[in-house]
Amino acid sequence: MGQVEAAVEFAHAQGPRFVEELKALLRIPSVSTLPEHAGDVRKAAEFCAEELKRIGMDNIRLIETATAERTGGHPLVYADHLHAEGKPTVLCYGHYDVQPAEPLDEWKSPPFEPTERDGNLYARGAVDDKGQMWMHIKALESLLVAGGGKLPVNVRVILEGEEEVGGEGIASYLRDHGEALKADVALVSDTEMFAPELPTLCVGLRGMIYTEIEARGARTDLHSGMYGGAAPNPFIALAQVIAKLKDEDGKILIPGFYDTVQVPTADELKAWTQLPFDEEHYRATEVGSVALTGEPGYSVMERTWARPTLDVHGMPGGFIGTGAKTVIPAKATAKVSLRLVPDMTPAESFGQYKAFVESITPKGIELEVRLIHSGDPIVVSTDNAYVRAAVAAMREVFGKETVFVRGGGSIPVVGDFVRNLKIPTVLMGFGLPDDNLHAPNEKFHLANFHRGIESIVRFLVGVGV
Amino acid sequence: MGQVEAAVEFAHAQGPRFVEELKALLRIPSVSTLPEHAGDVRKAAEFCAEELKRIGMDNIRLIETATAERTGGHPLVYADHLHAEGKPTVLCYGHYDVQPAEPLDEWKSPPFEPTERDGNLYARGAVDDKGQMWMHIKALESLLVAGGGKLPVNVRVILEGEEEVGGEGIASYLRDHGEALKADVALVSDTEMFAPELPTLCVGLRGMIYTEIEARGARTDLHSGMYGGAAPNPFIALAQVIAKLKDEDGKILIPGFYDTVQVPTADELKAWTQLPFDEEHYRATEVGSVALTGEPGYSVMERTWARPTLDVHGMPGGFIGTGAKTVIPAKATAKVSLRLVPDMTPAESFGQYKAFVESITPKGIELEVRLIHSGDPIVVSTDNAYVRAAVAAMREVFGKETVFVRGGGSIPVVGDFVRNLKIPTVLMGFGLPDDNLHAPNEKFHLANFHRGIESIVRFLVGVGV
Repeated sequence: MGQVEAAVEFAHAQGPRFVEELKALLRIPSVSTLPEHAGDVRKAAEFCAEELKRIGMDNIRLIETATAERTGGHPLVYADHLHAEGKPTVLCYGHYDVQPAEPLDEWKSPPFEPTERDGNLYARGAVDDKGQMWMHIKALESLLVAGGGKLPVNVRVILEGEEEVGGEGIASYLRDHGEALKADVALVSDTEMFAPELPTLCVGLRGMIYTEIEARGARTDLHSGMYGGAAPNPFIALAQVIAKLKDEDGKILIPGFYDTVQVPTADELKAWTQLPFDEEHYRATEVGSVALTGEPGYSVMERTWARPTLDVHGMPGGFIGTGAKTVIPAKATAKVSLRLVPDMTPAESFGQYKAFVESITPKGIELEVRLIHSGDPIVVSTDNAYVRAAVAAMREVFGKETVFVRGGGSIPVVGDFVRNLKIPTVLMGFGLPDDNLHAPNEKFHLANFHRGIESIVRFLVGVGV
Repeated sequence: MGQVEAAVEFAHAQGPRFVEELKALLRIPSVSTLPEHAGDVRKAAEFCAEELKRIGMDNIRLIETATAERTGGHPLVYADHLHAEGKPTVLCYGHYDVQPAEPLDEWKSPPFEPTERDGNLYARGAVDDKGQMWMHIKALESLLVAGGGKLPVNVRVILEGEEEVGGEGIASYLRDHGEALKADVALVSDTEMFAPELPTLCVGLRGMIYTEIEARGARTDLHSGMYGGAAPNPFIALAQVIAKLKDEDGKILIPGFYDTVQVPTADELKAWTQLPFDEEHYRATEVGSVALTGEPGYSVMERTWARPTLDVHGMPGGFIGTGAKTVIPAKATAKVSLRLVPDMTPAESFGQYKAFVESITPKGIELEVRLIHSGDPIVVSTDNAYVRAAVAAMREVFGKETVFVRGGGSIPVVGDFVRNLKIPTVLMGFGLPDDNLHAPNEKFHLANFHRGIESIVRFLVGVGV
């Protein structure tokens, strides 16, 4: 029995234990955006570091990301195994931080008490990205056991705890210490399959700028009876600004915003039309709204993968309790993000956005436009040995040919790998479209967890051939 | 020494004690809109009832306002003293509930720890309305002591605990049991003086409808990366709706909304121009915004007293924490109120508003428009013996002639008095424009608390002459 078969057999036999370990990791509420969970984020990092040590990786360490300019960064977790002389080096990336779990009352089981139902594992981070990151570690463990402590390729592991808040720590580490992560290809499992049973590689991701617009009117909160009709209202001002950022069809109205948008090739667009996709089914079962929205003349795939968008995520300020308070708040804020596509850049797009927002400042209001974080859009090459190894690995596991898609979300680190390490990334993800990423009842289909481990085992062996 | 002089002397001598009693009442956080404070609201009611009993009023009782259709209503407090045969009956009204104190971090001293600074008493409810309600009770005490247990008029006292949440309890009590509050005139101290040292009667109040617009898009919260460009965004939808409700100059765009707006008389408008008012000073010191807003062609007094307005108070939903969450929320809500002026009615105005909002529902969105509470606009007569008694009383205390103004806020019970009891109301208030009603650092200028008590003593004696 070769290393592949032995590793796959080990992974099958140990599957239930792998799931129990993942549950222990999911119980740690490592919500990176909430300062009160900083200790939990570190605990999740230590949990991963201990497991990397236990399975036999070398040079395990936590890399602190706080700098003189920046306090409170969450640590990177590093490990390597560099004993496969003459073989390529694969950089395995994952993130151990998660999105906030709110609104809590919409979870059927508590977000940090992992629960199995109908072959799925429900928990915040189940698929994004703790579960997928755990596949990497478990594939490495399976290969190490099967190979008597040897791996078919050189491997570096880098895990971050700030993916959900913009990834500033890993970005600056890659800028300043890129040589420490020298590799030939990066492997990222933080995307999804286009449909159940359909092996998928993601070959493009949107970038983003996440911003806040703060509107200030009166010096202090005022009574709307006494001052209504004279005092500016920051919420109404924000509504006027937002209504001018995007027309009712979904076209963004910021001057110059679309100037550098790259149109996908005719081949890529054609391939998208051949994907198994039923727009009405998607509307009814995945989105669940009375209608879909977005720019006319573009398909759902184009709109979510290859066109920039603008969304509002929350509008803090004023009175949000039950009942009535007749306040004109002194200030209100809109959390607004814009998704970018190649060849847009966060710097130029934010500049256009900020200038436009400021130019439409309503009367009586002062606006402050802040950039919270950003990430580059990327398109990765499909023409290299690593992609071929991934396709071959998944053909073995799924018995099907891989489809190439893009993702609408952002994984800023993929751009950092291109920029700082000059290496391609294989985006081999095993989530499903209904896994409720960033939403209540996030889950991971456990069959895909196990198929992911086997696919990664076969991919690493394939890269080493 | 007559009853007036003896009562005034008693009130002067006992002034410090009156303030200490008020502080004890202010320490009770009777926030009527927050269910968790229901016990405190009742405690405030009992506090008032005990004091009415102690000073010698009759028939003290708490009147429950919960009905088959409505649970959780806060009680009314009733007392009377009906021994002045042949004299008019005055209905003294006040409210013992208060607005929420948020945002707490902007208070210089805690909202429910009354603190004296520079001749002012700082606390939530200091002036709105616990302090002004306490003036009534202390004026009654002073007259009862000075008169050996007799009052110069018949008096009924009715205090409510739901003024800040729409006054539904007292409204339905007046509808169903109005005869129990039979009187010749109501006295309400829940308004302010136009300027320091300037005795003021309020002769008009705006009404209001307080509403919520709930926008629903997707069935569950979605990731803005994966669904941005296809899924409807409830916040953007609300922004589009709000931006269409009012133009950028402040004109409300709801069809028919202004049809029944009554223009003040030429005399009233002329009187307003003679009030001591400096618009630039008001902008800079009272509002503190870079510019004032509102309908062009109308003065600040007209805009805040005699024109309808629309304000947004808060927009719950989505992610409002620190940092970033890339969620397209399934739903979001806007808390929107509209102030009404004579001869608008809440029912007709809400109907116009709801129909218009529904007619501009954005694509992909379902809207629900809810009425939270409402109150009628009113204009009260200035030509009766009660107003003349009030003017004479305040001339004695302030040495000045009274000015007649309107208020921009709503005191729905005044409309209920007109409708159900067919009696006029004297709106004799002693707040100041900078008393921070409904805002952090609410205060009551203590000199006005004492002058208020003396004015009410003289008014009640004057009515009895």
